[in-house]
Amino acid sequence: MQNFDYQTPTRLIFGRGAVDEKLAEVMSRFGEKVLLTYGGGSIRKIGLYDRVKEILKDKEIYELPDIQPNPKYDPSVLDGVKICKEHGIDVILSVGGGSVLDCSKAIAAGAKYDGDPWDLISYKATAEDALPIVDIITLAATGSEYDPGGVISRTETNDKIGYVDPHLFPAVSFLDPVYTFSVSRKQTAAGCADAMNHIMEQYFCEDSTLLNDGFMEAGLKSLMINAKKCLEDPEDYEARAEMMLCCTYGCNGIYALGSSDSGWPCHAIEHALSAYYDITHGEGLAIITPRWMEHILSGKTVGRFVKYGVNVFGIDPDQDEYNIARQAIDATYRFFESIGIPMHLRDVGIDGSRIGEMAHHIAVNEGLENAWIPLDENDLVKILTESL
Amino acid sequence: MQNFDYQTPTRLIFGRGAVDEKLAEVMSRFGEKVLLTYGGGSIRKIGLYDRVKEILKDKEIYELPDIQPNPKYDPSVLDGVKICKEHGIDVILSVGGGSVLDCSKAIAAGAKYDGDPWDLISYKATAEDALPIVDIITLAATGSEYDPGGVISRTETNDKIGYVDPHLFPAVSFLDPVYTFSVSRKQTAAGCADAMNHIMEQYFCEDSTLLNDGFMEAGLKSLMINAKKCLEDPEDYEARAEMMLCCTYGCNGIYALGSSDSGWPCHAIEHALSAYYDITHGEGLAIITPRWMEHILSGKTVGRFVKYGVNVFGIDPDQDEYNIARQAIDATYRFFESIGIPMHLRDVGIDGSRIGEMAHHIAVNEGLENAWIPLDENDLVKILTESL
Repeated sequence: MQNFDYQTPTRLIFGRGAVDEKLAEVMSRFGEKVLLTYGGGSIRKIGLYDRVKEILKDKEIYELPDIQPNPKYDPSVLDGVKICKEHGIDVILSVGGGSVLDCSKAIAAGAKYDGDPWDLISYKATAEDALPIVDIITLAATGSEYDPGGVISRTETNDKIGYVDPHLFPAVSFLDPVYTFSVSRKQTAAGCADAMNHIMEQYFCEDSTLLNDGFMEAGLKSLMINAKKCLEDPEDYEARAEMMLCCTYGCNGIYALGSSDSGWPCHAIEHALSAYYDITHGEGLAIITPRWMEHILSGKTVGRFVKYGVNVFGIDPDQDEYNIARQAIDATYRFFESIGIPMHLRDVGIDGSRIGEMAHHIAVNEGLENAWIPLDENDLVKILTESL
Repeated sequence: MQNFDYQTPTRLIFGRGAVDEKLAEVMSRFGEKVLLTYGGGSIRKIGLYDRVKEILKDKEIYELPDIQPNPKYDPSVLDGVKICKEHGIDVILSVGGGSVLDCSKAIAAGAKYDGDPWDLISYKATAEDALPIVDIITLAATGSEYDPGGVISRTETNDKIGYVDPHLFPAVSFLDPVYTFSVSRKQTAAGCADAMNHIMEQYFCEDSTLLNDGFMEAGLKSLMINAKKCLEDPEDYEARAEMMLCCTYGCNGIYALGSSDSGWPCHAIEHALSAYYDITHGEGLAIITPRWMEHILSGKTVGRFVKYGVNVFGIDPDQDEYNIARQAIDATYRFFESIGIPMHLRDVGIDGSRIGEMAHHIAVNEGLENAWIPLDENDLVKILTESL
């Protein structure tokens, strides 16, 4: 078991009516000037935008709308930082999914930094402070509401960087499953795949524990069962709620306390796909994951796949271990397919023309030579090609 | 799924050498005047007392030694509060097991309260502040290192009260499994039973989730396997470490996020046993638990016992449900017995003479009429009598 130093200070306020009940009280602690960040029109459609404005009617509110999926450094982060600095913003209220929140985190750090915010995101400088962040989550997926990280894309350099800093834990995250009732089938499935991959990135490692494995197996099983229920009945409160809670634990480290770091290879690969082609993150992960699994299956890894297959998919353990492992990988693929995820890169508009370029970008920037199963440029080309 | 409002801000610093590496840095943030709290001689025997004094040699240290298991309001809490007020203590450093930490929490709150600290413990008043607490845990059991509660006994009134207040989360908890190598067989087993019962108190409830159930089943299985390993080889680092981590989650609420409250009936009953007879908490819980299970087995509860039996003990699910439930209860009893816990009240010095008195005390003070399966005075007499 590895040593660790762990803290997740975020307060979670979870359940039906949570915003009505507690948002005013929570926001009253953080000052008068609020930057309200959000994405497209979905928060207006579900009435959340109006509700938030009503609850905060006595505050001085500035707005940063139109934050995109795979949120962009330019213009979103830069615009947000500018507003914060010009108006002396006290707190950011992020209303939306993980992309809005990720963007808000980069803004929160940039607002308290004198130089170019990209210095922070690219780890050239370290944040010494950040604005407090409160969020209202409207999509079960990234776990950003309970972790200190965000992923920011910079279009001109094809960079999509996971930026992690302990200052970036949200102070308070509101999670009302009702706000996810209107999430589309596509985004529900992609969110499930994202959350499942967060777990798999921690499950497939050199050194885990019975406790962590059990937690993660429970998370995977719950996500699969509840995602299907959400697709069958988008207003199934219990299923939306459990899916939302499952997603929350994805990236705060609790699944890997004492485990060795896997290097999160599927995320490293997917970040290139999204950076080059701006695809939906969860779909990219679902496409890559089973191909990565097949690529790393070996005498060193087969035992983990057997445990995964038996405990998550209920595969009969009395078989040849490679048989079990291959069935587990196939079951992973088939589950993603069954919830409607396009399972080939070509289905999401990616052909083979830039595979070499992407593989090179990943190999140079993502450090996968230190992953549990190291991946070099050749490995990456193979995995991407198998994913076409 | 129930609404919840959840936060666990404590920082966990875990692993071999954690104290040497980070205690000085951590303590440097909390001021110069330290109240060092501890129990009997064990922290001297393992060299931890000297090590802590050496690390903090530039601090102004006051000491409160001799804190007992089932820590006492008088003298320990009162003495500690007096020292804090007289000397303007900045931070409490609790070194020992859950009893030392529970006592330290009551001191931390009492030090910032003008009236009688019992007002806080008995919920006549609410803490508005508390001294910060740092702890070094030397026993895997209570989970106090990661929760905002403590249990304090007042001998003259036979009260043993669980006192919970959000101010009482430790700021930082150090967990080095090596400090638990010298824990006796008796205390290792009792700690395991305590942690297992913390999980069972959350598992057996009206409304849980697949996720919570999976987490808890993993915790129970890990505790059983690792406790046995610790008993076989007290210096098995991996087993001590995993047991320590399992115990940490016991009472911070993570196992019950969104679940309905069970009322923690076994703890309510055991608190009377310890208050009247000062027995080892974990042993009392192990004795009570299977008798409570048998007492509440009914058409309403049998499904939970089936899930527990199948998923925790691997009992064949293709049987009559009451068969499975009874096998699960029997397996619980036999596990505790197998790790050397005395499984009858008479084995720990309790005869039947005060059962009526204890049952009355519990019924009046513990609110078990609101438990998942309500228990009145007659129920309590039966459970206690079956436990003799």
